[in-house]
Amino acid sequence: MKFLPLALMIMTMLSSLEIKAESATKPLVRIAELEIDPVQLEAYTRAVTEEISTSIRVEPGVLAIYSVAIKNQPNHLRFFEIYADEAAYQAHIASTHFQKYVVTTKQMIVSRKLFETVPLALGAKPGSPIAGRD
Amino acid sequence: MKFLPLALMIMTMLSSLEIKAESATKPLVRIAELEIDPVQLEAYTRAVTEEISTSIRVEPGVLAIYSVAIKNQPNHLRFFEIYADEAAYQAHIASTHFQKYVVTTKQMIVSRKLFETVPLALGAKPGSPIAGRD
Repeated sequence: MKFLPLALMIMTMLSSLEIKAESATKPLVRIAELEIDPVQLEAYTRAVTEEISTSIRVEPGVLAIYSVAIKNQPNHLRFFEIYADEAAYQAHIASTHFQKYVVTTKQMIVSRKLFETVPLALGAKPGSPIAGRD
Repeated sequence: MKFLPLALMIMTMLSSLEIKAESATKPLVRIAELEIDPVQLEAYTRAVTEEISTSIRVEPGVLAIYSVAIKNQPNHLRFFEIYADEAAYQAHIASTHFQKYVVTTKQMIVSRKLFETVPLALGAKPGSPIAGRD
């Protein structure tokens, strides 16, 4: 029975490692595909650019929001959004600036597909807040 | 005619500003949608993770390569890739590590859609090499 304390020690170590792994939250990545009314594309672009810029500036948990148009389809937009964790995403969609964007752009969006994702690899240069999180 | 030198000076200034704006290249963003053979998903994940990690480490012009799976569809992957410019992208696809990835994964990929894009807003935190490029 002289090995029991060692076994207990190992079990305690393993259990604390497990807790550590659980509490190290991974970034939350969301993808969106939007089709914008071509006539309102300029106004939409202004509204979304302002919303992205504000979110990055004032929300610590909004790591990146990228918005691009498919080439030769300027009103077909793709969004790739990286949040520090689920709480950061919830704070984002509850924010005044996001709610303002929703109201402003409601009549400009023809269709919208939203995708939740499971990150496989988030390769980013050192210095980026995303580096080393996946 | 005493204003001519001033006018010339202003024109010279404007023309040099124009050159500066032209030479400040914008990042190149590419999107890919891949369906992977479910049986080979683990091997594919290993290969692509290694390829992304090497690209970020050795290629200065590869700013970010993100790979995620659609939730509940683990073999439906989306890629969002940011290169410093067109030359950085061309160097990437010609690199030994990318060519190795292509050969290794050729039989693992069921379907592939590639999209060229026009960036609208690339919102990233200060410190990220993407910040301020759009």
